[in-house]
Formats: sequence, C-alpha cells, structure tokens
Amino acid sequence: MSPGTRTSPPKQDRSRATRQRLLEAAVACLAEHGWAGSTVSVVAERAGVSRGAAQHHFPTREDLFTAAVEQVAEQRSAELRALAPAGEGTARTHAVVTELVDLYTGPLFRAALQLWVAASYEPQLGARVTVLESRIGRETHRMAVELLGADEAVPGVREVIQGFLDMGRGLGLANLLTDDSARRERVVAQWARILDEALGADGG
Amino acid sequence: MSPGTRTSPPKQDRSRATRQRLLEAAVACLAEHGWAGSTVSVVAERAGVSRGAAQHHFPTREDLFTAAVEQVAEQRSAELRALAPAGEGTARTHAVVTELVDLYTGPLFRAALQLWVAASYEPQLGARVTVLESRIGRETHRMAVELLGADEAVPGVREVIQGFLDMGRGLGLANLLTDDSARRERVVAQWARILDEALGADGG
Repeated sequence: MSPGTRTSPPKQDRSRATRQRLLEAAVACLAEHGWAGSTVSVVAERAGVSRGAAQHHFPTREDLFTAAVEQVAEQRSAELRALAPAGEGTARTHAVVTELVDLYTGPLFRAALQLWVAASYEPQLGARVTVLESRIGRETHRMAVELLGADEAVPGVREVIQGFLDMGRGLGLANLLTDDSARRERVVAQWARILDEALGADGG
Repeated sequence: MSPGTRTSPPKQDRSRATRQRLLEAAVACLAEHGWAGSTVSVVAERAGVSRGAAQHHFPTREDLFTAAVEQVAEQRSAELRALAPAGEGTARTHAVVTELVDLYTGPLFRAALQLWVAASYEPQLGARVTVLESRIGRETHRMAVELLGADEAVPGVREVIQGFLDMGRGLGLANLLTDDSARRERVVAQWARILDEALGADGG
C-alpha cells in the first residue's frame, strides 16, 4: 500500500503525536500532582495513552520528565529566536522590552516555573533543569544585548541587562495567579525609558 | 501544681508546637507531593503527629493549607517590618535595595513560591493565596517607598518602585535552583545606582 492510499496517519506520525501528548501531560501532571504523584502510569492516563505505549516511549519517569524539560527548553529557545521587534531609538527599546517580557508571561514560562519548583526538591529532575535553564538564561541574555544594541564591553551594561531580565521573570511570576497585564504595561513603559537612559548613558 | 514545678511544657504550649509543626510540614509536603498528595494524614505523618491530633487542629485539608498560607504571609509581613537599612544618600539606597532583595531570596519566599505554583491550579488554595499575596505586595510597595524616601506623587515613580520589586521577585526565582548570590550582588549594586538616579531625577 502506498502512502497515498492510507486512511489513517502513518505509524511514525502517530507515534510522534503520542509522544507529544505524553510530554504535555507530564508538565500538567507535575503541576497538579507534584513529583511524587507523577508516575508514567498517571501521565499516560491523563494523555489518554495506554500504559504499555507510554512505557515504550519512556521506560522510566526520569526519561519522561527529562524529555519534557528538554522540550519546554527547546520551545522557549524557538520563541526567543522568533523575536523581531520593530522601530528605532526609544520606540525600539520599548518594543524589545515588551517582547522580552512577553516571553515570561506566556504558557511556556508557566510550564518552566512548574518544572523549577519541582526541580528545587527533586534532585533527579534538578540537575537537568539547572543545566537547561542556565543555557536559556545565556541565550536570552545574548538576544537582549543584540536586540537592544548594547555594548557589554562598557562596565555595568551586563548587570543592567541582567537586572532587566530578572524583572521580566518577576513579572512572569506576578502573572501566575492574576491577570497582571494592565499594571505590567505601565511598568514596562517606565522601565523601557530607564533602560534606554541607562544603556545610553553607560554605553555612549 | 504550680507552673514552676511542672516537668513537661503546659498543654497549651504543646498544642501550639504541634500546630506549628503541622503548618511547616504542610508547606514542605506541598512542594514534594503537590496538592493532590498533600492530605492531612500525609502532613501529619511528616510532622510526626498522630492523625487524630492533626484533625483536631485542622479538620480539613483546606483548613490546614489556609492556615499555612496565612502563617507564611504573617511571617513575611514581620520580616518586612523588621527591615532597618542604615546610611544616607547612595549608600542608603544600596542598603534598602539589598535588604528588600534579601526578602525574596530567603526561605519564606521559597515557601511562598511553592504555595503560588500549587495555587495556580488549585482554586480552593488560589483564592486565599491571591488575597494575601496582594496584601503583601501592597505592604512591600509601601515599605519600599518609605525606605527609599520616594515621592509617589511624581509621575513614573510608582512604576519605578514596582519594576524594582518585580526584579526582586525574579532574583528570588533565579536563586531557587542554584546559589546566585555572586551575580545577584553585582546586579543589586548596579540597579541601586540606577534607582537612585531614576528617583532623584524624577523625584527632585
């Protein structure tokens, strides 16, 4: 039978879709049941996948969650590389700040937060999360420097950018329980001005 | 028998100590087992308290966790009121920024983080956490304004302070998985300078 005459998706595609459902269920499960309650069986049930199929993809809980952590990291990197703020001068700084802060208030950062909190008490998860988080931190920093046109050779510029990204993470946290967008917009507007001055004054 | 001749602590004190052990165990349990796994029985076992005694203090899981959330909030308020930065001018700003950021990297903020993440998917916990978190947010803001001698009547000053406190929360998050103190010290030093200028320029 040629692929054209199939009525169900090819086996490989179905396998990929199953894997994907398991990874998404793993992150959601961790949030609700914590590490102790997030076994491969529980995740499989949530994903609507048989236990056998789940164990075929991920023999152990560590395999499953390592893959989930890696996928969230991968998606966050892709999100970061897709940034394309427009404008020049102060308007551009405002666009860059808005887009970077948006990364911290989206669903992927929320998923990452769940993983961090679980990783903070679960060493098996912690090692992988720490390595990947540090990689994403460096990528985000590099991207911020590039988009803001900042010169890191100038003393203090590195810390200005770092503090700003810490602020973004804090804004993401503030958005966890309530919709914080109105307040956030005002903070972003004011801090874009401060960043513009701080980089301008230090950098030129 | 007069209190002076007792060999064991008075009943009321023992009861208070039991309650305290249960509240501490509740926060730790939530981190490890998530909301679903944090029943009164599990918390009682962790605290080394009989199930009956635990249920005497907290008949339901909601009672137990509401009390835990309130206690963490109470302790964070007390920590805040105890701040006493010294110095004048730029040195004072640096001291204020350091002390406020320290609040976000201590064990109480870590406990609060666990509660937030659980509250983000557990509505019964969420309502109480949101109310208390918003109260602490206002208290912290008021204290920051007072300690920095900032004038909120000046446009932008409110958002400068808010963004700085968001940065503090982000620094707390960054400290969750690794000891981030060396980097944090440099960020704090740089942003204390920027805050000093932003408040000085806007405020006077």
